[in-house]
Amino acid sequence: MRAISSRAAIPILAGIKIDLFEDELILTGSDTDISIEIKLPASEDLTINSTGSIILTARFFSEIIKKLPGKDFSFEVTTGNQVRIKSENSEFTINGYDAETYPRLPEITDESAFLIGGKVLREIINETQFAVATQESRLILSGVHFTFDPDAIKAVATDSHRLAERKINLENGPKVTTDLIIPGRNLQELSRIIGEADPDVQVCPGENQVLFKIGNISFYSRLLEGNYPDTDRLLPIESTTTVEFDLAELSSALDRASLLTHAGRNNVVDLELDTENQKVKLTGTSAEIGNVEEEVSFRALEGSQLKISFNPDYLRDALRASVTDAVVMKFTQPLRPFTVTPNKADIQFIQLITPVRTF
Amino acid sequence: MRAISSRAAIPILAGIKIDLFEDELILTGSDTDISIEIKLPASEDLTINSTGSIILTARFFSEIIKKLPGKDFSFEVTTGNQVRIKSENSEFTINGYDAETYPRLPEITDESAFLIGGKVLREIINETQFAVATQESRLILSGVHFTFDPDAIKAVATDSHRLAERKINLENGPKVTTDLIIPGRNLQELSRIIGEADPDVQVCPGENQVLFKIGNISFYSRLLEGNYPDTDRLLPIESTTTVEFDLAELSSALDRASLLTHAGRNNVVDLELDTENQKVKLTGTSAEIGNVEEEVSFRALEGSQLKISFNPDYLRDALRASVTDAVVMKFTQPLRPFTVTPNKADIQFIQLITPVRTF
Repeated sequence: MRAISSRAAIPILAGIKIDLFEDELILTGSDTDISIEIKLPASEDLTINSTGSIILTARFFSEIIKKLPGKDFSFEVTTGNQVRIKSENSEFTINGYDAETYPRLPEITDESAFLIGGKVLREIINETQFAVATQESRLILSGVHFTFDPDAIKAVATDSHRLAERKINLENGPKVTTDLIIPGRNLQELSRIIGEADPDVQVCPGENQVLFKIGNISFYSRLLEGNYPDTDRLLPIESTTTVEFDLAELSSALDRASLLTHAGRNNVVDLELDTENQKVKLTGTSAEIGNVEEEVSFRALEGSQLKISFNPDYLRDALRASVTDAVVMKFTQPLRPFTVTPNKADIQFIQLITPVRTF
Repeated sequence: MRAISSRAAIPILAGIKIDLFEDELILTGSDTDISIEIKLPASEDLTINSTGSIILTARFFSEIIKKLPGKDFSFEVTTGNQVRIKSENSEFTINGYDAETYPRLPEITDESAFLIGGKVLREIINETQFAVATQESRLILSGVHFTFDPDAIKAVATDSHRLAERKINLENGPKVTTDLIIPGRNLQELSRIIGEADPDVQVCPGENQVLFKIGNISFYSRLLEGNYPDTDRLLPIESTTTVEFDLAELSSALDRASLLTHAGRNNVVDLELDTENQKVKLTGTSAEIGNVEEEVSFRALEGSQLKISFNPDYLRDALRASVTDAVVMKFTQPLRPFTVTPNKADIQFIQLITPVRTF
């Protein structure tokens, strides 16, 4: 059901395809962007009497199964694509659709496939996916750009206002470098399917699609085609002011400072780094409602005096994605992007935020 | 905040009035339909330095207080109705409004006041309030009609398609019979404020308003004016078919039978009471999706054969309000209202549902 859109363009795609084979049941859902296939082998919980296929509207199928009175139910396709579902004294007769009309899933071989731990994949998705563009003015930016190397994964996402780049070392990456640009929304679903456990995930890159195999689940995602911008050149090499914050401390100050700016017309906070007097001030102002001033405590502050303005939501997202309990922020000039990185040098995670001109 | 509408017509009513007296703090919220006042006495948790009043936008005031970093905060009205809220290194300056502009609450004496247990009041609200009219074609039906007697409360609600009437015995009711028609929405809020505990509630009927005092909370509700219809004459005295159901059994069968009718154009289920063969069948049909047939088990069934059609949501609401684990349904004719009552004669709770003509 995760692959099924509530606004499916054709009724078939609001449905789940059900294929019964001699030895297994296959359920398929798709919105053409994502397709999910799950295989259930015949067992003492699944007795297969005869083979065949049908499509049932996902919403009703799932609600009916949830609400059946008994522990077991029988499922039978009768004439005219009708399905009879029986459990104890309850009997549903539901109109289905001919399974022949269902779109075919792409055939993807595991020729250039490789394995990743589910936990690593989920982590790298959650650390970058939020930064993709949601307004599709540049379609390519709605995806996360993955580069899978024999010994590392790199993932980059940017909406051109902020950027997140994460690298994680890998032991059994693909033999050759593989570039994939995967839509952010699809990755969110993939991350949910991976879940809290750490299953092995087999990545099978295809022509226009990529297939992720997790246990008995096959997750297909469309790939974005085109050239992803070269983001490496955006990352600043030097800095003039550096500050290290406790993550919780900065998060809650930011939360308060943005309380009023969220309601006002101008969602911008001001950060003042007074290196001389060793003070950090975060300010949020809404002409209509009022203002808030936070004196933020910090772990270290050095370099030139600086005053910078930015959208607090970008920093909030960056802090939420952080994997350490302290972050380092490095600045050059009030109108140049600044970076947010973990306070541990061995974690390769860099976030970039573009400030806002307020004067 | 429960009294404050998110769509307040004037900014003042989106605010909470804050009155500081020598010995107490009073907070007031109102949408003119409901007003709530809460008194906090000076204590070691509330130090009052000087007296005065101000209005602050409820949404921001509450969010700011929730997010303050410290255990304590200071609150100070400065010039121009500005309020300074300080806690640790956080300082908010918020624009307030002159408290003089706030509407006055009605003055209601406790001359004809009486006490009810919070649990009883909450119960009688929850057992009737759901049945009020939500489309205000007849405004009077948007309220629950309470009759408080020296030894009993009676509450009636109807939207003209279904009706719920509940009587509960009382020990210390009012000296004279008191009739109040209270808007259903307001009762819902009152029920939430009473909460799970069983506080004493003092009911003070006024001219156009009624005041409920619960501990340090005063809850004012507007009263509906006019004559509530005489509903007693609607209750059928005789019946030709009677059936007793286990509540859980009927609820889950109804839930399934209405699964498809909810999605179709016609939200109607059919109930067939076959007294001859001692069978009960519940059916829900949607031309587009399919149908469901439930053979419902029952505790007792007697009288004439009957087939009746009705909106399943009315029966669902009636079952949800039920206080016993089995209900008795009594029918006369397929087009006459039927009753749902507890299977225990000493509980005075009767619900009436009007069937639907389907032929």
